[in-house]
Amino acid sequence: MGRGRTQRVLVQRIEDERRPRREPDELIVEEPLEIRLDGNLVTTTMRTPGDDFELAVGFCLTDGLLAGAPVLQCRYCADNRTGADAEFNVVTVETGGRAPVPQPRLTSTTSSCGLCGSLSIADLRARVRPLTDAAPIPVDVLASIPERVSAAQKLFATTGGVHAAAAFDRTGEPVLVREDIGRHNAVDKIVGRLLLDGALPASDLGLWVSGRASFELVQKAWAAGFPALVAVSAPSSLAVEAAVAAGMTLVGFARPGRLNVYAERQCRAPNENAANDDS
Amino acid sequence: MGRGRTQRVLVQRIEDERRPRREPDELIVEEPLEIRLDGNLVTTTMRTPGDDFELAVGFCLTDGLLAGAPVLQCRYCADNRTGADAEFNVVTVETGGRAPVPQPRLTSTTSSCGLCGSLSIADLRARVRPLTDAAPIPVDVLASIPERVSAAQKLFATTGGVHAAAAFDRTGEPVLVREDIGRHNAVDKIVGRLLLDGALPASDLGLWVSGRASFELVQKAWAAGFPALVAVSAPSSLAVEAAVAAGMTLVGFARPGRLNVYAERQCRAPNENAANDDS
Repeated sequence: MGRGRTQRVLVQRIEDERRPRREPDELIVEEPLEIRLDGNLVTTTMRTPGDDFELAVGFCLTDGLLAGAPVLQCRYCADNRTGADAEFNVVTVETGGRAPVPQPRLTSTTSSCGLCGSLSIADLRARVRPLTDAAPIPVDVLASIPERVSAAQKLFATTGGVHAAAAFDRTGEPVLVREDIGRHNAVDKIVGRLLLDGALPASDLGLWVSGRASFELVQKAWAAGFPALVAVSAPSSLAVEAAVAAGMTLVGFARPGRLNVYAERQCRAPNENAANDDS
Repeated sequence: MGRGRTQRVLVQRIEDERRPRREPDELIVEEPLEIRLDGNLVTTTMRTPGDDFELAVGFCLTDGLLAGAPVLQCRYCADNRTGADAEFNVVTVETGGRAPVPQPRLTSTTSSCGLCGSLSIADLRARVRPLTDAAPIPVDVLASIPERVSAAQKLFATTGGVHAAAAFDRTGEPVLVREDIGRHNAVDKIVGRLLLDGALPASDLGLWVSGRASFELVQKAWAAGFPALVAVSAPSSLAVEAAVAAGMTLVGFARPGRLNVYAERQCRAPNENAANDDS
């Protein structure tokens, strides 16, 4: 079936002066997923199987491909090209032709990027709704997230090789957790689930991600309407710029007992940042 | 210029019960790089500026786009579309038209993937030379790598937000280190430098990467001819399968004093693995 999320192998473990020994080890599974929109090829991404419909829908939304079209159906798509191995590696998202036909682009999956960081952000501003209707999530709530999500990371405990994302509510309670070999996939799985549940924009939720915060992750959080993004590790320069442009709270190095705030959402439009706010 | 690799910002640091304080923090820079081959658009990747020619050349080689064509020149490419901000964000690799014209593909940068893992590996087998002429690198040499490369990671020490890759020789001495916000970019920068130096295939070198080993990284190591890949964290299932197919040694969880061997290169063709090898 190829649907397992972990795979057991024998590994040769070498530790200090001890004799090398063969032991079983659990690997995180990585398989390609081809995503189609109304039958048209959109992208192929390497992912951990599971929640594939959510991943496909979330990718189409955060990449701006739906353009407001409703998702009518998702299905695994077996055609002449697909064999038994591949049956669950192609997903079609159906909008009844209401989404624009995806255009061939010679670019990566972060394909909305322009030729420099500022252009990338200008492009986002043009296609993504501002977050103006969402109240900020208080920093003391954000500070409680790291301890609360770590218990929910099941695959990581098994394999040590997987990323995770979580949506949490305004009290800091995790309401959705997804794990995947790709951090961006874990986020797309969260966003896709929320879209299928009619819960977007995510104005009353925050997004937590393991690892670092890149521009791509801020882009996805912004497209889904999260007012706050909390990352376990460092943000990039462009991630901070994008969060400021979005008016999004961006927290990095979020560990139990400490965090850094790189951008903080105010209760007003993002371009009205006052200088006297350094309290 | 947009050429800096780190950027200083003010961050609000919150720690335990202490009063939040504003402090300077160093971010890793992330900017898009557009890669062209003989003037044709190949991809846009988010990267940390620096070693851009190496990145462009390495990407073209490991993605199979050169098809044996020589690299005659690399240059930053300013045309009508590019403004001052973007001047150093477009690189053209010139082969004098000897490389095939890159085809538009509606896929991600890991675009050589088929519809399932086995097909992805079959595709690699078809386009990448086997590693048959490279002797294995002994495991005790591989075990010495983690301590030897950590000293060379400069940006990580500053920002905590960057990946690294290193090429090391048969004695375990690091000979090239590159850092980038993307692990795959750091590897492409290594491979590109070796290509420009006429040092490919990398039969007498091993490749070390921070973080996890994905299928994509094994693909890049294989395309460049490294007989061994050493990763700080976990490999994926497909990474192990690809390493076995390549006949490459794949080490994961490589920390000072310990490591796991997931695939081990033998002194014979990869399909001749004997069952009585468990010594």
